[in-house]
Amino acid sequence: MILLGSTGSIGVNTLKVAKKHNIDVEVLVAGKSIELLNKQIKEFHPKYVVVQDKDDVKDVCHDRVYHDGNGILEVLNKAKSNLVVNSLVGFAGLKPTLEAVKLGKKLALANKESLVVGGEFIDTTNITPIDSEHFGLWYLMGDKKVSSMTITASGGSFRDTPLDKLKTVTVKEALNHPNWSMGKKITIDSATMVNKLFELLEARWLFDTDKIDALIETKSIIHALINFVDGSTTAHIAGVDMKLPISYAVLDRVDDEVLKPVDLLEVGSLEFRKIEEDRYPIWSIKEQILKNPHLGVVINAANEVAIEKFFAKELGFLGISDTILKAFKKFEDTKANSTEELFEIDKEVRKFCNF
Amino acid sequence: MILLGSTGSIGVNTLKVAKKHNIDVEVLVAGKSIELLNKQIKEFHPKYVVVQDKDDVKDVCHDRVYHDGNGILEVLNKAKSNLVVNSLVGFAGLKPTLEAVKLGKKLALANKESLVVGGEFIDTTNITPIDSEHFGLWYLMGDKKVSSMTITASGGSFRDTPLDKLKTVTVKEALNHPNWSMGKKITIDSATMVNKLFELLEARWLFDTDKIDALIETKSIIHALINFVDGSTTAHIAGVDMKLPISYAVLDRVDDEVLKPVDLLEVGSLEFRKIEEDRYPIWSIKEQILKNPHLGVVINAANEVAIEKFFAKELGFLGISDTILKAFKKFEDTKANSTEELFEIDKEVRKFCNF
Repeated sequence: MILLGSTGSIGVNTLKVAKKHNIDVEVLVAGKSIELLNKQIKEFHPKYVVVQDKDDVKDVCHDRVYHDGNGILEVLNKAKSNLVVNSLVGFAGLKPTLEAVKLGKKLALANKESLVVGGEFIDTTNITPIDSEHFGLWYLMGDKKVSSMTITASGGSFRDTPLDKLKTVTVKEALNHPNWSMGKKITIDSATMVNKLFELLEARWLFDTDKIDALIETKSIIHALINFVDGSTTAHIAGVDMKLPISYAVLDRVDDEVLKPVDLLEVGSLEFRKIEEDRYPIWSIKEQILKNPHLGVVINAANEVAIEKFFAKELGFLGISDTILKAFKKFEDTKANSTEELFEIDKEVRKFCNF
Repeated sequence: MILLGSTGSIGVNTLKVAKKHNIDVEVLVAGKSIELLNKQIKEFHPKYVVVQDKDDVKDVCHDRVYHDGNGILEVLNKAKSNLVVNSLVGFAGLKPTLEAVKLGKKLALANKESLVVGGEFIDTTNITPIDSEHFGLWYLMGDKKVSSMTITASGGSFRDTPLDKLKTVTVKEALNHPNWSMGKKITIDSATMVNKLFELLEARWLFDTDKIDALIETKSIIHALINFVDGSTTAHIAGVDMKLPISYAVLDRVDDEVLKPVDLLEVGSLEFRKIEEDRYPIWSIKEQILKNPHLGVVINAANEVAIEKFFAKELGFLGISDTILKAFKKFEDTKANSTEELFEIDKEVRKFCNF
């Protein structure tokens, strides 16, 4: 396989699955965690390696090391593996996704931003999402007529924080997720509910529906629900562990135990909450964005800029949502007619938000 | 269709479904609710009618009225309909089930006691269970490898009653079910957890598995769960209304809304509890009975006798479980080799319990 983002949480879990099932790892693509990358190289003997920065190339223990986005595209073309796992973070994941689809490769997609930004231009036929929510939806889909779908949110780091404190919460507090241990960006996206808005958009493209909504289930053991026309609802329940969707995305068949089943008696109780707009202001544009999914590029660019500013302490936590909502208003009539235009819009939005 | 038990809760709901979908009702079989039966005759114009007691025949507004168990068997043979809905209560449902299967008819089975008592001798190929729990299991069954199944219990009328009060609860209190409005016998069976033990046995025969267990979900909106080998669990959620399983058992296809979907935000929270043996003493024989499902006949006979005694105030509430456990111990080495022997064992157990 070709693994983009090998040192992140999804990448590390993917390598565990690859090891267990003796899957050959042809390419490792990493960001800046060179030490971990070197360990992975030693264990998996990839043919090609890509890192983010040219400066890091010399520290990588491998003789075929490429760098940056162009390096990824070059290696995608050189490599023979049919399976690409894309767990890059953010907008940087889009170009490799477009290239993998163009090359006709099977794509296991953990990079949400690919579909959020470019869904309109991406043929999802050969894409399997690595995501508990979309995996859950896929798992539940049967032969009965679907009426609507629901994915769950944990509510993120501030789901129980008094509303008047949200203005002054710190980066450290924002990174303290109640249920999942994940990368930094997605943890913030979870606190602002941007992550769930992105997942609605992904579902929009993957399942070709706008009858998709979300609610908070505080323990994150129910990941997805499907309402069928007859009045039945089915739910997908599983432990908080990405190895399950990864296994299904990476293997042809899953016949053995990937996770221990959830013990509901141990869980004891479940709680469902509405996603309130006063706690999660970006939820106010949910309907609009589902009707205009091509605006995902705007939200994503604004979000990426705002998160960087939040990390740099130039913006408070609520400033992230503010930035997104302002950009959304400013660019609501924008529409890309090609992938090239997507990149232009992305730039413009970033400029606007950085102003 | 041939409807056995038309004036009970399942029967009344079945007629609603029949009316909505213009299904011809060829036979109505009722117990003692002659007034309601006469209304049903006026509305559905059955060809044959059967009542329990000979004395009631004269009060039925129909010219082809049969009576008692033999009347049911006779009419089963005369009628042309291929579909039999058996919602008779108790042991009396067994003979009609055996006859319907013998005649090669399609059987929608709400009478739990048929499989509990005679499962070993019944080919379940043409049987669809009318039961939220087994319907839920059937609904969830997909193409993935199943590891185990779970059905839920409400906990019945006394799930929150202090344990030391159980000895002195009244019949009226026992009939006050927290979630479901059902017949008298099944409401008591729910309070003693006998109903759930019966459902485990039914699942044993319907799904050919002994990896089946139950837990309490206090709101009765999750009816069934399947644990798959991979670590996924799926749940079937639906409103507390039998029209959903009835529709699937009675119609060839269900394409429209039978029930409104459950609104989880309105539900708010769910609670799971272990089925404790001190509150539900018959749960102590669960493993044994699943290993020896042929002993269902013993439990059922003892239960029917004990419930009658409880209604007659000859026995306290805990006396029901006591009676069953004593009979189970006494007859644990019994095994019927034919359906005829089933009826003999049934008689013997009743004699023992009535002593």
